[in-house]
Amino acid sequence: MTGDINHQIRLKARPLGLPRRSDWQFTEAPVPEPGEGEVLVKVLLLSLDPAMRGWMNEGRSYIAPVAIGEVMRAGGIGRVIASRHAGFAAGDHVSGSLGVQSHAALKGEQLTKVDPKLAPLPVFLNTLGMPGMTAYFGLLDIGRPKPGETVVVSGAAGAVGATVGQIARIKGCRAVGIAGGAAKCRYLVDELGFDAAIDYKTGDVRDGLRTHCPAGVDVYFDNVGGDILDVVLTRLARHARIVICGAISQYNNTAPVKGPSNYLSLLVNRARMEGMVVFDYADRFPQAMRDIAAWIAQGKLKSREDIAAGLETFPETLLKLFSGENFGKLVLKVGDDD
Amino acid sequence: MTGDINHQIRLKARPLGLPRRSDWQFTEAPVPEPGEGEVLVKVLLLSLDPAMRGWMNEGRSYIAPVAIGEVMRAGGIGRVIASRHAGFAAGDHVSGSLGVQSHAALKGEQLTKVDPKLAPLPVFLNTLGMPGMTAYFGLLDIGRPKPGETVVVSGAAGAVGATVGQIARIKGCRAVGIAGGAAKCRYLVDELGFDAAIDYKTGDVRDGLRTHCPAGVDVYFDNVGGDILDVVLTRLARHARIVICGAISQYNNTAPVKGPSNYLSLLVNRARMEGMVVFDYADRFPQAMRDIAAWIAQGKLKSREDIAAGLETFPETLLKLFSGENFGKLVLKVGDDD
Repeated sequence: MTGDINHQIRLKARPLGLPRRSDWQFTEAPVPEPGEGEVLVKVLLLSLDPAMRGWMNEGRSYIAPVAIGEVMRAGGIGRVIASRHAGFAAGDHVSGSLGVQSHAALKGEQLTKVDPKLAPLPVFLNTLGMPGMTAYFGLLDIGRPKPGETVVVSGAAGAVGATVGQIARIKGCRAVGIAGGAAKCRYLVDELGFDAAIDYKTGDVRDGLRTHCPAGVDVYFDNVGGDILDVVLTRLARHARIVICGAISQYNNTAPVKGPSNYLSLLVNRARMEGMVVFDYADRFPQAMRDIAAWIAQGKLKSREDIAAGLETFPETLLKLFSGENFGKLVLKVGDDD
Repeated sequence: MTGDINHQIRLKARPLGLPRRSDWQFTEAPVPEPGEGEVLVKVLLLSLDPAMRGWMNEGRSYIAPVAIGEVMRAGGIGRVIASRHAGFAAGDHVSGSLGVQSHAALKGEQLTKVDPKLAPLPVFLNTLGMPGMTAYFGLLDIGRPKPGETVVVSGAAGAVGATVGQIARIKGCRAVGIAGGAAKCRYLVDELGFDAAIDYKTGDVRDGLRTHCPAGVDVYFDNVGGDILDVVLTRLARHARIVICGAISQYNNTAPVKGPSNYLSLLVNRARMEGMVVFDYADRFPQAMRDIAAWIAQGKLKSREDIAAGLETFPETLLKLFSGENFGKLVLKVGDDD
């Protein structure tokens, strides 16, 4: 079983702007032997997320940066091929921070078992994974929407955004999505049941908000930052809540981040802007997973994944997040489940 | 009694940048007769506040703008000289939105009686007036400081800021003020009991925060916006609360407002930024006034006013707020209490 090669992708240089292929180093090493208490995992699927761009930067954040020369951090799903931990056996499916590599040896405590009979494996990286958890706690704990309120979400066709809008509907709110392109907008309304979608690439977001949120925006779940955040600020309802989940428009900036110049709308509208980091809710993930699994089973919540293949395509596949090319949760298939 | 002249200052043009004398119109009219249910007030003191600059702009805000040709809005203290309202009699002292004029006829319901035996009249425009109410509810309801936490306030020598810092101390917090000039900084520490003061005119605010808030900023009460808000954002403690009370650095901008480019610190630190408007707390003003009056009586809270004289100096006196020349609550004395 060992004797195989572990293909790994390491961070070679901290990118300025969009990460380039030359920012990565492709290395090979023997597949490791699991140590005492460790589990050797064959990586099947990796989750590619906007947050990864932040992990590549130096400096203080909610999580330590990936060090130069280190295997790039990534959540993923794998299959156990050898175990020296009583909780896992060969053949088990697991999720965890596996890294951008073909094999990972991790302590059992760093892994969570995944039941492939419950849902297709990619769903565990989407609505039943971090994006689902982010949407659930960001919307419900920070946004606190009340039935009848209007919830606006940007990056709405992305993994987090699509789930935010669907949970908003489940909770009796109007859901308005902001996304790029007619196909994504149609998908939000026709497939996911959003009340309306605004195409920021061809339409005017301000006009769209005026049309679709005539009483203002009660909850804005922000995944993008930049100009869209600034426009939504002009359309807040009294006592609005803005959930700051991310700012994908700003992650590859070489210029300073664009601050929301309309932030004084928070004062005028007695509104709130609050940041959230999903890891803080880890002890409540089981509750969220039960709710989300039930909604999926009841046909109330849909999961869509955009699956690319091949570890070696990682540098280019990651960029789809920033160009908006991905349609659904971006997943990289690294190995076959055999 | 009538036959006297009512001297009034009206908004003539919406200023670009700092209001100029030519933006005002000085008019004279007969002192009005009070109508049924009205009270005629001789204006004694007017409160000059940063918020007045916002009222001069067109457009949607938390309160309607002052119309062109209208008497400029201002809160003040006056003495009743004639009453056709059962609740008031000649000689009573009252507070209310009297306007920048020598006399005002208002419905009794728009006035509140003031007891000059309780405190000197200017105090009713300061710690027992809107600045005091703003500090009290902004800090306690929005900032929610816990004992031992570090509270930072900008515009700290101003009417709101000085009260915020003193209430923070009363509530068992460390209070750090940001103010302009050595005299104001000395005053904060030596007279008002702030733990530290940072002089933004001569010192580096970032260094000051590093020195005086080594564990980060738990509550930031922002009166100024702009660069100072942006620097404080880099020093937030986990779960910090930012109270957006005003943004005096931005009120006279002819360029667009500078948004806080470090707002993603809200995400990293799971922090919150929230706007407040004091009028929302009107039904709880009596409670706040009781608390503040008790703290004044116990010597725990000091009130300092900077009193200018003469209705005709209003255009220039107002500008002291924006140059930072005032030291304490800026009050314009309009009439003698005789």
